[in-house]
Amino acid sequence: MRQHHTYTPAVKDLAYTFGGVAPVASLHSGDVLTVFTEDCFGGAVTTIDDLPSRVCTFPYLNPLTGPFLVEGAEPGDTLAIHFRSIVPARAIGVSSTFPHAGALTSTTHTATLQPPLQERVWLYEIDTDAAVVRYRARNSDFVADLPLDAMHGTVGVAPPAFQARSSLTSDTHGGNMDTPELRAGTTVYLGVNVHGAMLSLGDGHARQGPGEVSGVAVEVAMTTTIALEVIKNVPTRWPRIESDDAVMSVGCARPLEDAFRISQHDLVTWTADLTGLDTLDAYQLVAQAGTALVGNVCDPNYTMLAALPKHLLPDPTTVYGGVHQRLRHVPVPAPVVG
Amino acid sequence: MRQHHTYTPAVKDLAYTFGGVAPVASLHSGDVLTVFTEDCFGGAVTTIDDLPSRVCTFPYLNPLTGPFLVEGAEPGDTLAIHFRSIVPARAIGVSSTFPHAGALTSTTHTATLQPPLQERVWLYEIDTDAAVVRYRARNSDFVADLPLDAMHGTVGVAPPAFQARSSLTSDTHGGNMDTPELRAGTTVYLGVNVHGAMLSLGDGHARQGPGEVSGVAVEVAMTTTIALEVIKNVPTRWPRIESDDAVMSVGCARPLEDAFRISQHDLVTWTADLTGLDTLDAYQLVAQAGTALVGNVCDPNYTMLAALPKHLLPDPTTVYGGVHQRLRHVPVPAPVVG
Amino acid sequence: MRQHHTYTPAVKDLAYTFGGVAPVASLHSGDVLTVFTEDCFGGAVTTIDDLPSRVCTFPYLNPLTGPFLVEGAEPGDTLAIHFRSIVPARAIGVSSTFPHAGALTSTTHTATLQPPLQERVWLYEIDTDAAVVRYRARNSDFVADLPLDAMHGTVGVAPPAFQARSSLTSDTHGGNMDTPELRAGTTVYLGVNVHGAMLSLGDGHARQGPGEVSGVAVEVAMTTTIALEVIKNVPTRWPRIESDDAVMSVGCARPLEDAFRISQHDLVTWTADLTGLDTLDAYQLVAQAGTALVGNVCDPNYTMLAALPKHLLPDPTTVYGGVHQRLRHVPVPAPVVG
Amino acid sequence: MRQHHTYTPAVKDLAYTFGGVAPVASLHSGDVLTVFTEDCFGGAVTTIDDLPSRVCTFPYLNPLTGPFLVEGAEPGDTLAIHFRSIVPARAIGVSSTFPHAGALTSTTHTATLQPPLQERVWLYEIDTDAAVVRYRARNSDFVADLPLDAMHGTVGVAPPAFQARSSLTSDTHGGNMDTPELRAGTTVYLGVNVHGAMLSLGDGHARQGPGEVSGVAVEVAMTTTIALEVIKNVPTRWPRIESDDAVMSVGCARPLEDAFRISQHDLVTWTADLTGLDTLDAYQLVAQAGTALVGNVCDPNYTMLAALPKHLLPDPTTVYGGVHQRLRHVPVPAPVVG
Repeated sequence: MRQHHTYTPAVKDLAYTFGGVAPVASLHSGDVLTVFTEDCFGGAVTTIDDLPSRVCTFPYLNPLTGPFLVEGAEPGDTLAIHFRSIVPARAIGVSSTFPHAGALTSTTHTATLQPPLQERVWLYEIDTDAAVVRYRARNSDFVADLPLDAMHGTVGVAPPAFQARSSLTSDTHGGNMDTPELRAGTTVYLGVNVHGAMLSLGDGHARQGPGEVSGVAVEVAMTTTIALEVIKNVPTRWPRIESDDAVMSVGCARPLEDAFRISQHDLVTWTADLTGLDTLDAYQLVAQAGTALVGNVCDPNYTMLAALPKHLLPDPTTVYGGVHQRLRHVPVPAPVVG
Repeated sequence: MRQHHTYTPAVKDLAYTFGGVAPVASLHSGDVLTVFTEDCFGGAVTTIDDLPSRVCTFPYLNPLTGPFLVEGAEPGDTLAIHFRSIVPARAIGVSSTFPHAGALTSTTHTATLQPPLQERVWLYEIDTDAAVVRYRARNSDFVADLPLDAMHGTVGVAPPAFQARSSLTSDTHGGNMDTPELRAGTTVYLGVNVHGAMLSLGDGHARQGPGEVSGVAVEVAMTTTIALEVIKNVPTRWPRIESDDAVMSVGCARPLEDAFRISQHDLVTWTADLTGLDTLDAYQLVAQAGTALVGNVCDPNYTMLAALPKHLLPDPTTVYGGVHQRLRHVPVPAPVVG
Repeated sequence: MRQHHTYTPAVKDLAYTFGGVAPVASLHSGDVLTVFTEDCFGGAVTTIDDLPSRVCTFPYLNPLTGPFLVEGAEPGDTLAIHFRSIVPARAIGVSSTFPHAGALTSTTHTATLQPPLQERVWLYEIDTDAAVVRYRARNSDFVADLPLDAMHGTVGVAPPAFQARSSLTSDTHGGNMDTPELRAGTTVYLGVNVHGAMLSLGDGHARQGPGEVSGVAVEVAMTTTIALEVIKNVPTRWPRIESDDAVMSVGCARPLEDAFRISQHDLVTWTADLTGLDTLDAYQLVAQAGTALVGNVCDPNYTMLAALPKHLLPDPTTVYGGVHQRLRHVPVPAPVVG
Repeated sequence: MRQHHTYTPAVKDLAYTFGGVAPVASLHSGDVLTVFTEDCFGGAVTTIDDLPSRVCTFPYLNPLTGPFLVEGAEPGDTLAIHFRSIVPARAIGVSSTFPHAGALTSTTHTATLQPPLQERVWLYEIDTDAAVVRYRARNSDFVADLPLDAMHGTVGVAPPAFQARSSLTSDTHGGNMDTPELRAGTTVYLGVNVHGAMLSLGDGHARQGPGEVSGVAVEVAMTTTIALEVIKNVPTRWPRIESDDAVMSVGCARPLEDAFRISQHDLVTWTADLTGLDTLDAYQLVAQAGTALVGNVCDPNYTMLAALPKHLLPDPTTVYGGVHQRLRHVPVPAPVVG
C-alpha cells in the first residue's frame, strides 16, 4: 500500500555527497515522500551582509536531504521520481555572486590572474500567492517582479563504481543538474547503481535562469513532495525528465558541447526506441523537431537538455511504462511519521 | 524617400564570403529590399538521390545574395536589418546528413578515425497555407507535421580587418549564425566595419531545431523582404536581435561555453545600459530573469543567444532609438526595379 | 627511524577509488615503501585475443594498491612522494584500443552515432636490461624498439569533501594523471585532505606518449619503491612534481585549455613564491622560460603540466624545504614485513 | 636556375591578412628568399612606456611580409618552405601583457566582467653571439639569461574558399601558428589553395614558451632566409613541419582538444602512409612513440603539434620526396635584387 512519509533533517543529518552516506530512511516503490530541503547556503545567508564566502564553510555547501533507501531498487533498474509539489519554505530567497564562481568570472578551473568580482548578496521576497519573486537592485531603486518557478537544482542517486560525489556536481547519477525543468509536475528518471538507489535532493530555487550564469539562483529552502516508483530491469544511462508535454535527456559534462552531444545522443536513441525509427531517421526528427535547453554553465559539470514534444510519439503512454501519468495523478495518502 | 528594391541573383552573382566581394547594388538607410536567396546547397539537392557531397562542390556551399552597399554606413555605425517577411520560394525543403558534419559525428576538427555516418537526404513538403513542413522517415512510414517557422541561417556584413570570411561561419559580423530567432518580425543589429556595410544574406530554413544538431536544417530558397536603417555613431560589438518581446545578444565562438559567455556578457552590459543598473545588479537580473538560447552547435563557430524580456526594461522604445518598432510597422512602398 | 615496508595486495585488497576505502597499512613520515601494483586491466589481458571489453568488468578497472594511512598527515599538510624506483614486474606490457575510449574516437561524452573503432590488443616485450619495449604491428611485420620509460599513471590521496573518486579520473587529489613525468627520480606533492592522507597508486606504464592518444599506454604491473615525507602546515592546491631539473604544476580538467590554465596559473603563483617576483613578472618569466607538457587527453579529466627549469630559481633547495633532494638520496633501509 | 631574392617591405607594403592581397613579387620553385619581417607591434614598442594598446592601432597588428606569388604553385600542390636562417634584426626584443589577451586572463571570447590585468612591457636584450635573451623583472632586480631560439610565429599561404584571414589566426593555410618548432633548420609544408600560393610570413620571436601563455612572446623583427619548393600534385590538408629528427602535424582549432585531435589524426594517417602500417597499427605506434607539443593557447585558434621521430620511419628520405634534406643543404646563391 502506498505510504506517505515525511522527513525533516536535523543539521547533523544533512549530506554533502551522493554515495558514501548511510540511509536516513527506507521507502517502497509507490511511496510518497514529503521532505524539507535546506538551501545551498545551509540557511546561513539571511541578510545582504551575510557574504557566503564568510558565513559558509567548505565543504558544507549545497546540503542534501537523504539518502533514502528505496527497497527493491537494484543496479540495472530505473528510479522514477515525480515532483508533486515544490513549495518555498521561507518568504525570502537569496542570491549572490561568489568569488570565482559563475560563468562571467574566472574560476578555479578557468583560472586567470585577475582578482575576483565583488561578492554581493541579493534578497528576493517570495510571494507564493501571487507566484512572484521580487528582484531589488542593490545600487539603485530598480525593482522587478519575476515569475515564481520553484524547482530543485539537485536530485540524484548514489553513483556507480563505489564513488561518493560532491553535491555540487552532476553526472550519470543526476546530482546538481541545475535545470529549471526540474519543477513540480515533472518526472525524473535515474539509473540505479547500488542496492536501494539512495535518493537525495536539495538546492531549491524559487527560480533560475537557464545557464545559472552568475553561479547562484534564487536559493530557498523547500517543502517538497515526491512520488517514487522503481522500474525493474530498465536501465537508464543518463538522467531523463518527462513533463506533460515533452521527453528530455540530460547531459552533464565539460566542455558544454559534450553536455549538448550527450543529451542529443541520448534523445536520438530514446526517440528511436519510442518511435521505431532507425537511428538516422530519429536523428533527423530530433534535429528539426527537438529543442536544446541550457541547464547550468557554472557547475563542475555543465548540463544541457535535449527535448522532444510528446505529441510526436506514436504512444506517449509507453514512456517508461506510463509511470509519469500514474505518479502525476495518484491520490496522495495522508502522511505518516517518516 | 523610402524605396523598395528587388533583387534576384544569377548563379554567377552568388557570393560565398562576407567581405572581399563587390556590391551588387546600393541602398539607402530606410529602404526596403526584397530578395531571392538560394538554399545552402545551391538548389542542387532535389531528390533523395542527390547526396550533397556528390552534387555540391566545395567551396560553392551556402551561397549569399549580396552584398548590398548601404550608403552612409561607416565603421562605428550600426546597421539595423528588420525581417518583414521570409517566405519559402519552393514547395520542397531538403535536409540531409553530410559526411563529418553535425554534432553527433566526428568532424574535420573533432577528428576521429571512425568512418563517417551514412549520407541520407530527407525531403519536406512545405505547406505555407497550413504553416507546416512534413517530415517523412526514410526507412519507415512515420510522418509528422512540424510548424513552418521560416528563418535565415545567414545574414551579415563585411568583417573588420580586411578580412573575407566564409559564408559557413559566424563572428562579430554576423554570418552563419543559424539561430531560429532570425525569423520575420525581428530586427538584427550588426556593427559596420567597412564603408557601405556590405550586407548579404542567405541560407533560408523552413524550420530549424535549436543546435541544428544534424548539421543541416530544412533548407529552402526564400523570398525575403527586409527594411534597413543605419544608426549613426552607435557601435555594436556582437550581433544583437530584437523581437517584439525580447532583446537578445549573440555569441559566436568555440568552445560552446565561450559562445555562452560572449552572449551573456553582452546582454549584461547592454542591460546595464538600458536600465541604469550597475554591472553586478545587471548581472544578477540577467541571471534570474534572462534566458539562454542555443543557435547552432555544428558550424565552424557555434552560436548561443542571451535574451531578456523587454517588459523588464524601463523604456523598451529606447533600444537603438526605437528602430525595431519603426521598421516593423512602416508602410512598404511598391517595389521598384532593383 | 626510517622504515622500509613492503606490500603486495591480494586481488580482494585492490581498491578502485581514492577515498572511501579503509587503509591497508600505516606508515610514518620518512618511511620507504615497496609495493606491487597490478596493471590497469587487473592482469586479465595476456594474449592478443584477450579483448579488454570482454575480459574486464566495469568498475574493476585500474586497480589501486593502498590506501596507506600516513601517520601525522592532516588536512592542510602536503604529502611528498618520491619515486625511488619503478620496475616492470612482468616481461610483457599490453596495450589496446578500447571501445569509445581514447582521443581519436567518439566516447561516452564526445558522443556520436558512429560505431566504435575495432578493439585490438598489442603486446610489447619489455627488455629491462636494454631498457627498451618492443612494438610489433598486428597487421604487418613492422617492429620498433622504443625506450623503456617506466612510470605510474595513477597516484593520489583521498579527495576532499567526503568524496570517493574513481581511480580512472584525476583532480586536486592527484589520481589518474597519466603523465610520463611520473617516473623514478621525481617527487610528487599532494595536498592532504583527510587524516592520514590515504595514499594509493597503480597503473604502471612501461612507457606512454604524451596525450595517451589511444587511451591506453604500455600497461604493466610494477614493483615500485617510494619514499614519503609529510610537510606540515604547507597546503598544496593542485598536484605538483619536482624532478632534478624542473618544478611542475599539474592541471586536471576539461576542456583541455582549463587543464592548461590551471597548470600555468599554479606555476606562476609558485614561481612568484620561489623567486620573490610579483605576479606579472612571474607570469612573464613563465611565459618565456617555462614549458607546457601534455599529460593525457583521454581520461575523464585531461591533464597538462607547466614546468620551469630549477636553475632559474634563486635557491632550488627551498622548494618544499628541499625534500626532493633529501628523499632522492637517503639510504633505503632493508625492508621489513609490511 | 635557383635564384636568391631579397625583399624589405615599406610600411605601406605590410599586409594584415592571408589572402585578399596582391603579390609583392614572384618566385620560382627552388628559389631562395631573404626578407625583413617587422615585429608583431609594427616596431612601435621600443620602451617600457610604449603600452601596445596605446601605440598600436587595430587592425594594424602582426604585419606580414608578402605575399609572394610562387610560379607553378596551384591548388592541389604543396608548398615546402625551408627556414635556412632566422636572425634578429634588432638588439632588443619586446614582450608585454595586453588587455584581455593571453591564457591567464579573461578575453573577448572567454568573456568575464572582471577588469583586465595591468598592461606592462618587458624589454629583452638579445645577444646573438652568446645566443641568449635577457629577462629583466620590472619590479625587482631579478635577471635571467634565456636561450635565444629564434622562430617565426606566423607563416602561411592564401586560404581556400575566397577567404582573407587575419594574420592573428591560424588554420589549414598556416598563419599565426605560434609554435617554437618553426625555427631555422625546419621545413614547413602548406597545401596550396590559390594560383601562386601567396606566401607571407612575419611575427619573429627571439624565443617563445610553448603555449605563449601571456599572449606575447619575445617579439623582434627578423632577417630570414627561406628556400622554397613546389611539390606538384601532392595535397596537404593541415600544416606539417619536418625537422632533422621528426615529422610533425599541426592542428589549429578551439577548443584545445580539437587542436590535439587534428594534429594526432593527421600524424596517424601520415604515419600510415610513411610506414605501410594500417590505421590502427599506426594509431598505436603514434600513441606510444609520438609526442604532443603545445604551440599557442592564446590566439583565435590554438595550435598543437603531434610529432614522430624520423628514425622510426623505414625511409625518412621519402617524406615529401626528400625535399627537407635537399633544401637544408643546397648552396644558397648570392642574392639578386628582389
